[in-house]
Amino acid sequence: MTHDCSFLEDLDLADDQVSVADGRRESHATDYGTERLDDDGVLPDAVVWPERTADVSAVLAAATDRGVPVTPYAAGTGLEGNAVPAHGGISLDLTRMDDVVDYRPDDFQIDVGPGIIGSDVDDHVAGDGLFFPPLPSSGDISTIGGMIATDASGMQTVRYGEIADWVLALEAVLADGTVVRTGSRAIKTSSGYNLTDLIVGSEGTLAVVTEATLELAGRPEQIRGGRAIFETLADATEAVFDAVRTDVGVARIELVDGLSATMANDYLGSDLPDAPMVFLEFHANHGVEAEIDLCRTIFEDHGVARFEMSDDDAEMASLWRARRELAYAVSAYDPDLEPLHPGDVTVPISAYPEVVREAKRLGDEHDLLVPCFGHAGDGNLHYSVLADPDDPDQLERAEGLYREIVELALELGGTVTGEHGIGQGKRTFLEPEHGAGAVETMRTIKRALDPTDTLNPGKIFPETADGERVRDADR
Amino acid sequence: MTHDCSFLEDLDLADDQVSVADGRRESHATDYGTERLDDDGVLPDAVVWPERTADVSAVLAAATDRGVPVTPYAAGTGLEGNAVPAHGGISLDLTRMDDVVDYRPDDFQIDVGPGIIGSDVDDHVAGDGLFFPPLPSSGDISTIGGMIATDASGMQTVRYGEIADWVLALEAVLADGTVVRTGSRAIKTSSGYNLTDLIVGSEGTLAVVTEATLELAGRPEQIRGGRAIFETLADATEAVFDAVRTDVGVARIELVDGLSATMANDYLGSDLPDAPMVFLEFHANHGVEAEIDLCRTIFEDHGVARFEMSDDDAEMASLWRARRELAYAVSAYDPDLEPLHPGDVTVPISAYPEVVREAKRLGDEHDLLVPCFGHAGDGNLHYSVLADPDDPDQLERAEGLYREIVELALELGGTVTGEHGIGQGKRTFLEPEHGAGAVETMRTIKRALDPTDTLNPGKIFPETADGERVRDADR
Repeated sequence: MTHDCSFLEDLDLADDQVSVADGRRESHATDYGTERLDDDGVLPDAVVWPERTADVSAVLAAATDRGVPVTPYAAGTGLEGNAVPAHGGISLDLTRMDDVVDYRPDDFQIDVGPGIIGSDVDDHVAGDGLFFPPLPSSGDISTIGGMIATDASGMQTVRYGEIADWVLALEAVLADGTVVRTGSRAIKTSSGYNLTDLIVGSEGTLAVVTEATLELAGRPEQIRGGRAIFETLADATEAVFDAVRTDVGVARIELVDGLSATMANDYLGSDLPDAPMVFLEFHANHGVEAEIDLCRTIFEDHGVARFEMSDDDAEMASLWRARRELAYAVSAYDPDLEPLHPGDVTVPISAYPEVVREAKRLGDEHDLLVPCFGHAGDGNLHYSVLADPDDPDQLERAEGLYREIVELALELGGTVTGEHGIGQGKRTFLEPEHGAGAVETMRTIKRALDPTDTLNPGKIFPETADGERVRDADR
Repeated sequence: MTHDCSFLEDLDLADDQVSVADGRRESHATDYGTERLDDDGVLPDAVVWPERTADVSAVLAAATDRGVPVTPYAAGTGLEGNAVPAHGGISLDLTRMDDVVDYRPDDFQIDVGPGIIGSDVDDHVAGDGLFFPPLPSSGDISTIGGMIATDASGMQTVRYGEIADWVLALEAVLADGTVVRTGSRAIKTSSGYNLTDLIVGSEGTLAVVTEATLELAGRPEQIRGGRAIFETLADATEAVFDAVRTDVGVARIELVDGLSATMANDYLGSDLPDAPMVFLEFHANHGVEAEIDLCRTIFEDHGVARFEMSDDDAEMASLWRARRELAYAVSAYDPDLEPLHPGDVTVPISAYPEVVREAKRLGDEHDLLVPCFGHAGDGNLHYSVLADPDDPDQLERAEGLYREIVELALELGGTVTGEHGIGQGKRTFLEPEHGAGAVETMRTIKRALDPTDTLNPGKIFPETADGERVRDADR
């Protein structure tokens, strides 16, 4: 499945914008999910670094004309193989398009290239007391374009919403090279179809984003955080559910189970207690203490052992660092074990205690380590299943456990992925979640906008009997 | 352009679910926008009242098969002819599908039929301290389905967002009768294309919504409101801009100019001062007085003449009633004058003073009454132009003024409609706003999902040279 990419030489690209070197191709064939499982994608035939919208347009038009797949790539921090080329072709690396194009603090808006790192947006606007609330935990290494591709979200989503809620307008390039602008600078619009939110979360299968207009929020005057330690995981999850339904207005409310805490301690040298915990942060302009008191009261109803708020910035930074790096801590825990499918499921908050309980129960039943953590207030759970890749029996049990939890999330009215996308890893769950009619509707849109299946083929949609790419049969 | 609808007799519908009576057809050929301008739509050939999803599916499948247009209809409160049949056929009246299907207060969620009146949702959940924040000013007469069709918004959007932000999942029927479910009960998802937000705002041209899962919010503990009176409209709009960019956290911030106030007094017998005003409401769980003080300080910087907060419920109810009924007050003001195009434009908040100033300046220049009001905090402006429908010269000047403001909104980075949709009235502005590429992308989606142009033909998209409906040529 190699594709002739020599046409790139005829485009108006500088020498350093194209590479066919093995090292470059290999580095663009993995992401954080696939590299753990050694099921790397097919190597791209070439890597291209566009520096302007016109570059993206030229590459897409020419690639579509020649039937060459194009897979957008940036930081490579996805977990489901979203940006890993499944059919070779071109890896379109957008990291050089990382400019702040325009910044309008009075309107709480910033226009950025897709390659900008999330935390660089925060840094750019911090001086005006603004911030970009929906950054994921990987915000200091992931790009805005990648976050848009998967409709990412993070610790503050429980209060502020997901990436889609903060993208006002896009410039994007369609498969045939057409440049479109969606949305406007008005904070609301009813004008025509909402192409912005169709492109957000489409994982580069419908268009390549070349510029995004993001909304910003004013930094709250009062920010306080801390942790609550419980005796049982059931108490912790019930407390979270109760706090959310009581509308305590928390800005972060993260579950960390005892096993995850142990792994964090191993990895970071921290000294978190080996107990179920909830990490908290409250944002307010007034009355943050009253919010904390309300939360404490609710947590006490659920038998919280310790409820510790901190005014120490360094202490809080260390707490949040531990939470942010849990995914790495899980990976590093045991060199003989690898975390299977480190993505997430998300359920209605009322179902959160059940999905967490089942994940742990199944781990016990199958004698597997299942560290559980996540953005609890969203009903989001990351449950990695650790397994020895050289032990087929253990792998099979781990796969079974993993599937049972995804299926349970669906039974409970949830989604198979709250924030990491379908990519390659969760394609078989698309139809169980949405039903045949909705999936066929998605396919119809894909076929209409990208009839040659140029853009990121082999993602989102389950395999079809007659092969996935329309034009692969030709090769 | 009459369509043979006798096939309806073969469907499993009761006698009282179908009517071809003139009175019924006529009542389904107007909305609040068209009835003022006597440019009523084409009469539908039949009106159908579905009572369940299967009815909608059967009607759409049969109509698509026979090339008969279907235009969804409900309360008829649109302003742009959105639900007025442009090509005859069937008016699909969804008002009987008005059930609360399920209510999950612990998850802040309610599932409703599209025909339910907005305020009935609020009434249903009020006992649990919940409410549905994005209701438009017509929330006590408009249906949820209609709000979804135009992605409506209202006075509280400045704080809580628009309808799209509160729709979690949909059941909808495609043109061929396929029933699809979009979204999930999880509060976030990255699973597949966002069909929910594609359908929201598509004005019934892509699918007919048969059930919606709405998110709810907890009612704030502190609600206080009042009004600020300014000497000049410029002061009022600059004060709003300053308050928004200072992030005062206001829940309602509405502009009412002196002319609108006079019209409200005439219509309601109220005694609002004949001066530019800003109506305000603050929602908080703590510190509402501090929020009010911050806003007062900012307004004082802009020379506010009076800043009057009220604790009197009846007084506040009367204030908000005046604001809500402004559209009717403008219509009723002078029997010889009619408001031309009563929709809205919306601009970035920094451009709000300019768009309001220009609307008034052009009114003076052309000797036309231009009452200005709107959801100022969103940058939203309703500027009706009053004109004598029997005076062609005045009508032409009024049309010119109306167009100039829409075009100015676009120049300022705004949208031609923040909350009422394109319908029939604003089709010529779709391409100036979005560009040819984005409009063609919208058309491609429409053609892919509804190849026979069954669903609400003649809306959103500008006329094409070869006629708008694919199959009209057959007749």
